[in-house]
Amino acid sequence: MKLVYKGKTKDVFLLEDGNYLLKFKDDMTGENGVFDPGSNSVGLTMEGAGRAGLRLTKMFFEILNKKGIPTHYVDADIDAATMTVKPAVLFGKGLEVICRYRAVGSFLRRYGMYAEEGQALDAFVEVTLKDDDRQDPPITEDALDMLGILSHDEYKVLKELTKKIGAIVKEELGKRGIELYDIKFEFGRVGEDRHIALIDEISGGNMRAFKDGKHVEPLELEKLMLE
Amino acid sequence: MKLVYKGKTKDVFLLEDGNYLLKFKDDMTGENGVFDPGSNSVGLTMEGAGRAGLRLTKMFFEILNKKGIPTHYVDADIDAATMTVKPAVLFGKGLEVICRYRAVGSFLRRYGMYAEEGQALDAFVEVTLKDDDRQDPPITEDALDMLGILSHDEYKVLKELTKKIGAIVKEELGKRGIELYDIKFEFGRVGEDRHIALIDEISGGNMRAFKDGKHVEPLELEKLMLE
Repeated sequence: MKLVYKGKTKDVFLLEDGNYLLKFKDDMTGENGVFDPGSNSVGLTMEGAGRAGLRLTKMFFEILNKKGIPTHYVDADIDAATMTVKPAVLFGKGLEVICRYRAVGSFLRRYGMYAEEGQALDAFVEVTLKDDDRQDPPITEDALDMLGILSHDEYKVLKELTKKIGAIVKEELGKRGIELYDIKFEFGRVGEDRHIALIDEISGGNMRAFKDGKHVEPLELEKLMLE
Repeated sequence: MKLVYKGKTKDVFLLEDGNYLLKFKDDMTGENGVFDPGSNSVGLTMEGAGRAGLRLTKMFFEILNKKGIPTHYVDADIDAATMTVKPAVLFGKGLEVICRYRAVGSFLRRYGMYAEEGQALDAFVEVTLKDDDRQDPPITEDALDMLGILSHDEYKVLKELTKKIGAIVKEELGKRGIELYDIKFEFGRVGEDRHIALIDEISGGNMRAFKDGKHVEPLELEKLMLE
């Protein structure tokens, strides 16, 4: 088992069978001790955050697999805080695909001239480049195609998958009285046919969720969803 | 004749017949005396800049009108530095539509991970919101539609018009040995049928142009094109 990448919230190891092992860490993105799913830096470390994120990810990936939605998930070992996944090829150097149900965060910072804070959005999908140096710029379907990152046909698949997966997560949260405001996903090409599949994780660190009008922090979300 | 708007580079007056009179000023956008078509502040004032911009605008709008491309142009009075235009309704609070033939400026600042400086782009069209407070954020077709600014059908028309007009400007510049790198347009709804038409101006202040590998400043461009 060989360490191939040290990420902000996960380390990645190559397994002998060609799959990968993701080791979830207790670091979370944010600034100065405050969690922010849109941040590019590690802002805080909380004991148990890695395992909690993995438990939620395992739950969601297993629901998705049952529903026939392609993911890179193979299995998870909660005690070891690791998840085994199939190899995936990123689009370009990585994209973030965001599904929005309420106007908050970077959406509001960009489009505040046309949207009220917290205004309902109908599963609005947008894509940003993973590029810390350029603050993860938003990018259009036309630009993704022109720069050879994603074809128009692939964009359609990505958008539909994003809406489907977002709806499933939103429904699961809704069962516990939690409202999903927005969620970000990563996708890649998986398997010999290089089909588009969900990769990375689905945990509190990837979404903004509210209960009774109050923001639910990642660890709290994982507690509420899994208890 | 009533002043209805004082702009960065033009003042706008309402005429008695319902048309508008645009008075071109000698102020240009930029920072600290350096011209930048993408800037939101007045950076320099050059005597004759208003009239030179108007002469080029008149030339291009008359070519477009002859080719049957809808614009708001009625006529121009070079001595008075004024242009008469039909009333137009903006999309939202105004959009800028950019057509790019080379990767420079804000495109490169956003997508520099995937594009080399100066790399050829095939008449790539993108839209930004006119919003000084939010640094004119780029916006996708889906977001324009969702926020009620522009429908998907209107976006198609806008994109096609942008490519057509860009090609005409590029060709005219090419006749003088000048290469167009990028150009920005404004569009609005004009006439009783509210068709999409080019508005504002087409002058050196709206584009980046190069000759023999050197940037051509707006006043120089206007001299080269009109002499």
